[in-house]
Amino acid sequence: MKVDLLIQAGWVIPVEEGSVTHKNHALVIHNDKIIDLLPIDQSEQKYQAKTVKKLPNHALLPGLINSHTHASMSLMRGVADDLPLMDWLQNHIWPLEQKWMNEAFVRDGTDLAIAEMIRGGTTCFNDMYYFPDIAAQQAIKHGIRASIGLIVIDFPTVWAENSESYMEKGLALHEQLRHQALITTTFAPHAPYTVSDEPLSKIHTFANELELQIHMHLHETEHEIQDQQQKTKQTPIQRLHQLGLLSPSFMAVHMTQIDDNDIKLIAQTGTHIIHCPESNLKLASGFCPIAKCLEAGINIALGTDGAASNNDLDMLGEMRTAALLAKGVSGDASAVPAITVLKMATINGAKALGIDHLTGSLSIGKSADVIAIDLDVLETQPLYDPISQIVYAASRQQVTDVWVAGKQLLNNRELTTLNIADLKLKVSEWQKRLKTV
Amino acid sequence: MKVDLLIQAGWVIPVEEGSVTHKNHALVIHNDKIIDLLPIDQSEQKYQAKTVKKLPNHALLPGLINSHTHASMSLMRGVADDLPLMDWLQNHIWPLEQKWMNEAFVRDGTDLAIAEMIRGGTTCFNDMYYFPDIAAQQAIKHGIRASIGLIVIDFPTVWAENSESYMEKGLALHEQLRHQALITTTFAPHAPYTVSDEPLSKIHTFANELELQIHMHLHETEHEIQDQQQKTKQTPIQRLHQLGLLSPSFMAVHMTQIDDNDIKLIAQTGTHIIHCPESNLKLASGFCPIAKCLEAGINIALGTDGAASNNDLDMLGEMRTAALLAKGVSGDASAVPAITVLKMATINGAKALGIDHLTGSLSIGKSADVIAIDLDVLETQPLYDPISQIVYAASRQQVTDVWVAGKQLLNNRELTTLNIADLKLKVSEWQKRLKTV
Repeated sequence: MKVDLLIQAGWVIPVEEGSVTHKNHALVIHNDKIIDLLPIDQSEQKYQAKTVKKLPNHALLPGLINSHTHASMSLMRGVADDLPLMDWLQNHIWPLEQKWMNEAFVRDGTDLAIAEMIRGGTTCFNDMYYFPDIAAQQAIKHGIRASIGLIVIDFPTVWAENSESYMEKGLALHEQLRHQALITTTFAPHAPYTVSDEPLSKIHTFANELELQIHMHLHETEHEIQDQQQKTKQTPIQRLHQLGLLSPSFMAVHMTQIDDNDIKLIAQTGTHIIHCPESNLKLASGFCPIAKCLEAGINIALGTDGAASNNDLDMLGEMRTAALLAKGVSGDASAVPAITVLKMATINGAKALGIDHLTGSLSIGKSADVIAIDLDVLETQPLYDPISQIVYAASRQQVTDVWVAGKQLLNNRELTTLNIADLKLKVSEWQKRLKTV
Repeated sequence: MKVDLLIQAGWVIPVEEGSVTHKNHALVIHNDKIIDLLPIDQSEQKYQAKTVKKLPNHALLPGLINSHTHASMSLMRGVADDLPLMDWLQNHIWPLEQKWMNEAFVRDGTDLAIAEMIRGGTTCFNDMYYFPDIAAQQAIKHGIRASIGLIVIDFPTVWAENSESYMEKGLALHEQLRHQALITTTFAPHAPYTVSDEPLSKIHTFANELELQIHMHLHETEHEIQDQQQKTKQTPIQRLHQLGLLSPSFMAVHMTQIDDNDIKLIAQTGTHIIHCPESNLKLASGFCPIAKCLEAGINIALGTDGAASNNDLDMLGEMRTAALLAKGVSGDASAVPAITVLKMATINGAKALGIDHLTGSLSIGKSADVIAIDLDVLETQPLYDPISQIVYAASRQQVTDVWVAGKQLLNNRELTTLNIADLKLKVSEWQKRLKTV
């Protein structure tokens, strides 16, 4: 049979149920899909491929899914570090956003983020920011899969005036993007403290009708919870539950300071948790007890958050931090093993985003969203277990090749859809502007 | 004046008091020492250098000091992960050590560790393991600075029979290494639960006499503390204090589960803490409250621990984890800023090891232990603050050049004193042996 692409690899790690690692296997890709997985020695008999890619020292994995980003905040990477949260927001991030936020900022910042993500093996990101139309446009342009948040906030920003106009613009954008193969949309009400009940109820109704996921910050800090409790005698979780939002359509981002009752409720309602360990540490927001949550059966995905509070979009690093931190927080060295965080960074993300029928594992019939990691590097030797080395020892620089829907976006470390020199020039211009605020 | 080497860099970060970053400066190196630091445009007028190295997009820093390693355990990287501590030790690490520990293991494992460390910008490591003679020999051979632990344990191992013979072998090795420029030695009683009072008292006496530092695991786990308290009604810290060991000559490694009284005692005695955040997380040992300890005036250095419980010897990554974790543990996003962890990884390490007159900062008169980090990489753009980007965003692959005592060990990412292909072959042979236990 004639096919587009045969990738022959030392190891193939599909991240399906059972968590098998296949040695010396080939992934067969035709059009934009995975159509077979078989031993290398049978692959060239069965298939005549336009391209045969030989990666004998590499592991193939499903592309990583960064389930919580503010992509264009990359332009503010390191602009203000080591500050208390409110000082950081009120005196640095918000004034910069106020002054500089426009379509060009989001375009160039999203490009920087997309370039960094592709170079680090991320094939899909779940974004929430101003000008989601521009973020979608840049994702389509550069061939990366994206879940675009239709942001809603009570107060006026550069993107919209009030909750009605956010909804209107969001719905129009959803309509406009409906037939884009790589793009899905979600409702993205910013946070409990920035969105009131009425728009949340509307979002609930529209999300059901249009079958869209909802992407929202929730229980990020102790302050958020105390503040809400003072005002309404409810925690933000309780309030959202009362509004009917907690469900398998809901992605709750951060979820620090949750107790056993919260965990029970999250599990019962099928709500997804998006865990952002490095951002939670950097902003001293608290710890999400993911070992407990996993035990309760909650689907947990992984996100970096924006680069201004991380300061990278490195999902390999985020997996390592998630695995290490979970052991420390739970006091159990066997908690959240390597394969579990790998699932959080792939198939669990796809489930949370509602796209696990499309991506998240190297399964026959799914989109060819595939990455290759070179394990023949001193830092990942000896190689007793590829999954362990990928999570605990590999760097994102070991990601050599990336495909999204069968299209190669990274070829032996070279980006195919972005020009690094151009991008660096644009970024340095933004740096000069932002620094002189 | 004629000199050996002029390194002209975009930024020079000396890590001295005051934490100034110099832009477009040159470091002047003659024989094995730093003899000047001045603006680039003056450097070529004042000095005629045999070699001029131009690194306009790079930051120069003092070489990183990994203050706690078991270097040759690199051969056990990833051999057994995600296990409870005692299962990991008793059923995996100790049986492997029992079966395979010999001079060849330590030679090849130390080489693997040294190669990884140099590639990651580490110029000095503080080691504790069997066959310290071999570790010293390999460090000398490859030109890296090392502090070699003269290990002492109560029970017999491949290295010695009983505490007397450990002491004898240790003292002989100290004598033998006394005139090696790159090597210092420390007494390395393994841990409170493996070394009894008599040898500890002897170590105390000899350390004073010979002016050697003492390097010891202390308060690594809750179990260690409880066990000791049951036996002696003292915590391990109290016991060591009673024996007179806590002092500026003492490096206490790990120090989780310490309370305010412990912190006061550590501060009063001038004892150094070696913080190993990734190992403490991975083995679920607990958290060292470093923000509090720094506030109390304690000198804190940074170590990776062995690669079997980390799983890398990446000091850039360890700095990031230390800074992030300290914020999470203290609940303060402004705790342990980037410059503070950079000090922990350089000058504080030198102080703990008793070699801050030799190394640990880019100060005139000190040894030319220097590293260059390329910041002109997408992942560290924009570049508002080099120190922030180095700690929070850079990867160790951005380390391009490394010098120890003026000798270049890494040249544009190429190791000059180790052959990677040979090393990989040896490592893969060990992998085959260890896996079939």
